[in-house]
Amino acid sequence: MATATEGRRGRRSGPSTTREDILRAARHQFAEAGYDQATVRGIARAAGVDPSLVIQQFGSKADLFETVVSEFAEIATERIASLPSMSGTLGERLARSYFSVWEEPDARSRVMAIFRSVGSSDIAVNTMVSTFVFRVWPLMRHELGRDDVDGAMAQIASVLIGTAMTRYILDLPFTPRTVDELVATMAPVIDGIVARWMVPGAAGSAEAMPT
Amino acid sequence: MATATEGRRGRRSGPSTTREDILRAARHQFAEAGYDQATVRGIARAAGVDPSLVIQQFGSKADLFETVVSEFAEIATERIASLPSMSGTLGERLARSYFSVWEEPDARSRVMAIFRSVGSSDIAVNTMVSTFVFRVWPLMRHELGRDDVDGAMAQIASVLIGTAMTRYILDLPFTPRTVDELVATMAPVIDGIVARWMVPGAAGSAEAMPT
Repeated sequence: MATATEGRRGRRSGPSTTREDILRAARHQFAEAGYDQATVRGIARAAGVDPSLVIQQFGSKADLFETVVSEFAEIATERIASLPSMSGTLGERLARSYFSVWEEPDARSRVMAIFRSVGSSDIAVNTMVSTFVFRVWPLMRHELGRDDVDGAMAQIASVLIGTAMTRYILDLPFTPRTVDELVATMAPVIDGIVARWMVPGAAGSAEAMPT
Repeated sequence: MATATEGRRGRRSGPSTTREDILRAARHQFAEAGYDQATVRGIARAAGVDPSLVIQQFGSKADLFETVVSEFAEIATERIASLPSMSGTLGERLARSYFSVWEEPDARSRVMAIFRSVGSSDIAVNTMVSTFVFRVWPLMRHELGRDDVDGAMAQIASVLIGTAMTRYILDLPFTPRTVDELVATMAPVIDGIVARWMVPGAAGSAEAMPT
């Protein structure tokens, strides 16, 4: 707070703190309002700095958004990398690590920004897709011990993205509220997808599955 | 097209056609750009009418959006009502009726608008939630022959919403492309949710499920 106030007065003694203040304000605004409705002016005001400083440090609103949503890739990679040290089925470990992010207020604001903006921002779409394909899936292939599991991982991504949408954006009634409840209901769904995919002959091909 | 041109010239002989032209343009703009980026001016231009006519016929941009997304409730209700006449498991019938909507260009533009806007528009969120709770779920309770299935229906909603997000908004690689492939991969997921929910003692309570 003291640093934010100094920021208004002119030369900052701690530029890295100011940078963090701007990032925190940006995360919050993008998470609350989505990409379109957030403004550099509003972010600067919340960070207690001049809008020109936001532009100077991060470039345009699009560049700032890109920095914020890149945190999604970091968090996702870090959590997936921790799966081998957890206990339980793959579905339980994946659901627990994923929903824990959403239930930690600081982590949630980092992922909410991208989820709220996928409908209107190509940056959000591209970042989410590349995070899954280039960061999450290689680790998951290793975890599953197979290379031909992209279809299963796309289905699992659908389930995880959809549950976050219903729980945190739609707030749909009867959606589980706690991490434990979310794990209890969604882990069997994920484990079912993996099990069906591991059936000989089914891998890599939806047509090979019974209709 | 002739009607759209007439619209620019002044008094219209077919006001209901003009209304449909405006609605079609609005659906398209909201579906392509989402609520925030669509404009009354852009919609009027695409419909070949004066912006004042859009306001006169529909009120504000928010009112027009409300009219467009209310079509989601109509389509959802109509498709769910047709489930009893279809063959296959509940998962197969539900997945086929849902993904068929997305694969029909006209129907897709009617549902895309709401999916693209849930991150930034309360109207989209409220319409989607009330459609599920007040229109879809009563029919599904009847279909399942039980009243205590709200938790299962919330989970199924997560899966269907998530699959539409990954397939039609993210265009995530390895997501099934055709209705048949979407049904083949997602029907077993839905049937698994229903089967787990129907286990005695599990209904209505996530905690009652094995963790």
